[in-house]
Amino acid sequence: MKRIAILGSTGSIGRSTLSVVESFPERFQVVTLAAGRNVDLAFEQAQRWRPQIVSVAAESQAESLKVRLRSAGVAGVEVVHGAAGNVRVATHRDVDFVVSAIVGVAGLEATYEAVRAGKSIGLANKECLVAAGELITAEARRQGKPLLPIDSEHNAIHQCLRGGRMEEVRRIWLTASGGPFLNTPKSKFADITVEQALNHPTWKMGNRITIDSATLMNKGFEVIEACRLFNLPPEQVGVIVHPQSTIHSLVEFVDGSILAQLSVTDMRLPILYALTYPDRIASDLNFSLNDLRHLDFSPPDVEKFPCLRLAYEAAKSGGGKTVALNAADEVAVAAFLEGSIRFEEIPVLIESVVSETPVGKLESIKEVLAADQNARASAREKAAGFNRALGHKVPAAVGVEQN
Amino acid sequence: MKRIAILGSTGSIGRSTLSVVESFPERFQVVTLAAGRNVDLAFEQAQRWRPQIVSVAAESQAESLKVRLRSAGVAGVEVVHGAAGNVRVATHRDVDFVVSAIVGVAGLEATYEAVRAGKSIGLANKECLVAAGELITAEARRQGKPLLPIDSEHNAIHQCLRGGRMEEVRRIWLTASGGPFLNTPKSKFADITVEQALNHPTWKMGNRITIDSATLMNKGFEVIEACRLFNLPPEQVGVIVHPQSTIHSLVEFVDGSILAQLSVTDMRLPILYALTYPDRIASDLNFSLNDLRHLDFSPPDVEKFPCLRLAYEAAKSGGGKTVALNAADEVAVAAFLEGSIRFEEIPVLIESVVSETPVGKLESIKEVLAADQNARASAREKAAGFNRALGHKVPAAVGVEQN
Repeated sequence: MKRIAILGSTGSIGRSTLSVVESFPERFQVVTLAAGRNVDLAFEQAQRWRPQIVSVAAESQAESLKVRLRSAGVAGVEVVHGAAGNVRVATHRDVDFVVSAIVGVAGLEATYEAVRAGKSIGLANKECLVAAGELITAEARRQGKPLLPIDSEHNAIHQCLRGGRMEEVRRIWLTASGGPFLNTPKSKFADITVEQALNHPTWKMGNRITIDSATLMNKGFEVIEACRLFNLPPEQVGVIVHPQSTIHSLVEFVDGSILAQLSVTDMRLPILYALTYPDRIASDLNFSLNDLRHLDFSPPDVEKFPCLRLAYEAAKSGGGKTVALNAADEVAVAAFLEGSIRFEEIPVLIESVVSETPVGKLESIKEVLAADQNARASAREKAAGFNRALGHKVPAAVGVEQN
Repeated sequence: MKRIAILGSTGSIGRSTLSVVESFPERFQVVTLAAGRNVDLAFEQAQRWRPQIVSVAAESQAESLKVRLRSAGVAGVEVVHGAAGNVRVATHRDVDFVVSAIVGVAGLEATYEAVRAGKSIGLANKECLVAAGELITAEARRQGKPLLPIDSEHNAIHQCLRGGRMEEVRRIWLTASGGPFLNTPKSKFADITVEQALNHPTWKMGNRITIDSATLMNKGFEVIEACRLFNLPPEQVGVIVHPQSTIHSLVEFVDGSILAQLSVTDMRLPILYALTYPDRIASDLNFSLNDLRHLDFSPPDVEKFPCLRLAYEAAKSGGGKTVALNAADEVAVAAFLEGSIRFEEIPVLIESVVSETPVGKLESIKEVLAADQNARASAREKAAGFNRALGHKVPAAVGVEQN
């Protein structure tokens, strides 16, 4: 019986994790949940799973949840809140395995404390590796506990790496769907609207990650995550565009053999893999090879998608640069969604923030969070500048050509 | 330093093996060679590699080779011949690893004796698994020594299987190029000529294996090999048509993950893998993922290619049936190449022989060879009957429609 904490239980990964737990009640037990802001769902989950602790975002939400649980006759569930509440969820002594799926830097501290407490981690929070990857992976190595990736690409890499030893790896290859603008010429990028950018061809996701997929910054973040997770320099991490997203990633070994992982695009699969590793257990998540027809591939166009280049550069520098990349991207995407900057200005804004950020090795989660705040403030200021410039110089119907 | 015997050193796999040895002189040493009928090349190989023993097919060839080596001043190479010579090559006490690459049943005895002598085996001889697979794999298990497949499909499976345990495998999938008649309608099969059948789209190979690829019998043999090698029932071995032959095979695990192996189509890669397993060493056999564009897949058409069905049936029965399948196929292919039977009569002839063969478990290589002789005699007799029928009833320009 594996005893599980879920950080981010009301989000997409959290709900998929509970669905996996539900399918295998003899194998997994929910011990604690960090639910965030969705108190209605937190109430349902507490009632259904009877965890020892539930954490919500704010004190007022904790009070409201306590009242609801009491009137529903649910006893024995302790309700806590905020960052300290998340840490209690992550480090509870009865927990073996922590699913880290809080979105954004809010998930950093609790995940780091879980690693420090010697828990095995299933990692779905991007910032844990992009912003604090050096810290968290170093601590996991010290603890001798696995960091198992819960996203389709890195999970695929983890599986393919079983075909050899780390020193036998020549390169790992992340597949990218290519996003909605894969076949849009660069000359049309000035006209890209928010609606177009939010229209991802294969995945239905949150707004930020959808825009990050359209700029390929999401793939850039994954390059950084891969470098941290597998302890490889950026030169050993390649990207290949594969619109069907059937092959989730590949590992090329020094002898010339390449292993690839294919499956349905269902997050329950990497979650199940992480929860059961080193075993595999039977699921109904079947991919029918008899129905497979065509797979397409092409190299990514870094000229068209400069975010990918920015990510490689930040991965090389490490430290504060990757923190700034993530923070500036979040601000830039928000500014684009608000209509303050154009699509092709997203990388311009990010590059401007990152270039002014010192590399500086960050020694603690506190330093990471401070660097994150600084980069956000700088990005917001710059975004406001873009906004003014845009408003004055560029009529919406005309567009800016930048190359 | 791995000390190697090569059974079939003058054939394609043998020469590729020597090319691999040449690239890594610090890792591999040639101890013995079984060269067969090509005395000129046997002489060159003996001169270049200075093995302790060279075996050739006939006594007269051995005498001629001795004379040539003596006059070239090559000392210390013992020359032997025939089946007993092959066994000496395979079981030499200084040999660690035997590459089994003699074509046909001629390779059976020496390979079996190598397994019995506790050697590790790199297996390229099809008959070792199709005709004598139950015997040879049982003996290898008893010896606790690996049988490493040297062909692209089973080698790919071996690599993908590293991603989990055998009991976690739901199915293995062999890829098939589909042969030259993949897109030829069944109604045109009556008109297929020898020239068309020998025109394989992707591989340049010997005549028999080229025809076996055109009928899909080659894939059928590989299904049987896979069953024996990986100890799986035929229901757990699937075939998928993949004309580019870039993915060499796949393994589907019970959780729904599928691992696939990709590489260049160069036999040196599986040879290198087998010689270095469980390690991998750097080679220049690179597959450029940046140049990858399209991969196509489809299920095989068993109606059009009944040989595949015959192989599955023989795999289920085992024993004498797979011996007869192989023997009858060799005779049927020869009859087709001579113009005695039509392309679509190949499976008809084979099925007729196999259906009359008792299943009977074969307890020794001697019994396997006797069953092989019986099946060949039966197939030759039947082929002669077909020949007469053809000559009388079917004008070459008209064709026989059989469905």
